[in-house]
Amino acid sequence: MLEALDLAGTFVFALSGAFKAVRLRLDWLGVAVLAALTGIGGGIIRDLLLGVTPPASLRDERYVLVCLGGAAAVLVAASRIAARWNRVMLADAVGLGLFAALGAAKGLEAGIGPLGVGLTGPLTAVGGGVIRDVLVRELPAVLYKGFYATAAILGSAAFLLLSALGAPEAAALGVAAAITTGLRIATLVRQTQLPRAPYHPEPPDTL
Amino acid sequence: MLEALDLAGTFVFALSGAFKAVRLRLDWLGVAVLAALTGIGGGIIRDLLLGVTPPASLRDERYVLVCLGGAAAVLVAASRIAARWNRVMLADAVGLGLFAALGAAKGLEAGIGPLGVGLTGPLTAVGGGVIRDVLVRELPAVLYKGFYATAAILGSAAFLLLSALGAPEAAALGVAAAITTGLRIATLVRQTQLPRAPYHPEPPDTL
Amino acid sequence: MLEALDLAGTFVFALSGAFKAVRLRLDWLGVAVLAALTGIGGGIIRDLLLGVTPPASLRDERYVLVCLGGAAAVLVAASRIAARWNRVMLADAVGLGLFAALGAAKGLEAGIGPLGVGLTGPLTAVGGGVIRDVLVRELPAVLYKGFYATAAILGSAAFLLLSALGAPEAAALGVAAAITTGLRIATLVRQTQLPRAPYHPEPPDTL
Repeated sequence: MLEALDLAGTFVFALSGAFKAVRLRLDWLGVAVLAALTGIGGGIIRDLLLGVTPPASLRDERYVLVCLGGAAAVLVAASRIAARWNRVMLADAVGLGLFAALGAAKGLEAGIGPLGVGLTGPLTAVGGGVIRDVLVRELPAVLYKGFYATAAILGSAAFLLLSALGAPEAAALGVAAAITTGLRIATLVRQTQLPRAPYHPEPPDTL
Repeated sequence: MLEALDLAGTFVFALSGAFKAVRLRLDWLGVAVLAALTGIGGGIIRDLLLGVTPPASLRDERYVLVCLGGAAAVLVAASRIAARWNRVMLADAVGLGLFAALGAAKGLEAGIGPLGVGLTGPLTAVGGGVIRDVLVRELPAVLYKGFYATAAILGSAAFLLLSALGAPEAAALGVAAAITTGLRIATLVRQTQLPRAPYHPEPPDTL
Repeated sequence: MLEALDLAGTFVFALSGAFKAVRLRLDWLGVAVLAALTGIGGGIIRDLLLGVTPPASLRDERYVLVCLGGAAAVLVAASRIAARWNRVMLADAVGLGLFAALGAAKGLEAGIGPLGVGLTGPLTAVGGGVIRDVLVRELPAVLYKGFYATAAILGSAAFLLLSALGAPEAAALGVAAAITTGLRIATLVRQTQLPRAPYHPEPPDTL
């Protein structure tokens, strides 16, 4: 069950990478690479930080396979997928919740502190998207819009709190994922944004 | 023999990084850094993914040394090297083949599956170039032009197939490298490109 | 003492990340992320290269905390901090020296060669800034201006030399850090720049 959701989340993330690639008219390989890095990039960064090598998504063939499926789907049926994008967004919110909760759980297991877990959990969820944005030379979306990473951070924090209170892992995972997913959907509906920083120029590098 | 080729490939990769740097008129350090990251970046990413730390190219002094040599060569003799760029391209194709085959062999040893190997092999070959392009804010060339990474993927696949059929490693390495190098040269001559994805806009992030 | 300096250096690095974020009017999360990656990014890359996982800055809560403090400080008091930017630059020079010396020491312990140490030492000091610049789509400053990474390289080299001559580690660290910091401040005052490469176009990718 958890595995099926994990693979489904990877697939949905891969779709968003593939759409960036078709917008830029990359070649087939570029579509596959961008789909794969968006799908499994966050998990790979998390695994590297936690010392899990080779990363889980390179040992289990299904992750790359699912990403290639996402790339192929966008190559052959982009407009049909785009027409149902609201469903993809809902699935993406579920993936976000799951990845944040699982990332937090793996961080906790690896013995890093609460603030570290508050980074690795969300990173699992948003890392692939950041890699995607950097490769296509866009300012990473999580840095300035939506309530995406913030939802993941709050879900990861909930996981930590529940675990500290002695909740069984399955329950903590479920509640944490639900909080992230629910927050993501609610903020999508209401178009909630985090406050933006007031503008200030960078000070010059002189003494 | 293998080692000499490996170092020669690193040198040629470093040349391409150094040329990006002189086109942008970076300072001497920038030329050295871009040459080094292009030369050894792919192998470092591969080693990190496979859990080989410190990466081989930081333990064996000759790799960085050869990259610094490439940077110095471009700094003092850019136009003479550019005038012989077709020979550099041939050497680059040999390096591509070798890196892809060696990367696939290391991936297989580390126990990752065929699709993982199909990623780490080519990554060894093209990872340095992707780092180079991201640092100088260009869309990574492998994502949209030429037949570069694709040749590396086909060579890595050949290595996997030959290994699965029980071929001795040296033979599998040689054939795989020759396939990548041959494909790269043939597609350079014929200017073969992978098909580009048909354009489709990105769906908006709203429900 | 060393720890307090290390945390202070992290804080100052985080300030520079946060200023990039407010210049771009990222949201609060973006400010926090950019501050954190600039503050601890260099150390994380070094730890990954040396096989230290999870990285020290994720195990010790204070590093992330100090970065969040830097982000908050810039969010609430950007103009007051900018008005005292020359003091921040001095503190940054001290951080640069310390990070370069500590990075070199950790590289030496991990058993990599002198050239590898000459990379990991400075990388600790400048890696966070490179991540920051790439995320906001700027050409990394260390590649083309100032005498920043070069000062770190010379300090790391001094550490290596002193260690090879049998100096006690504390002395080697102190002298190396002082060299980097002194060079950085002197070159800031005199606006010294490394020579820039003479321009040359990139040769085309054809045979």
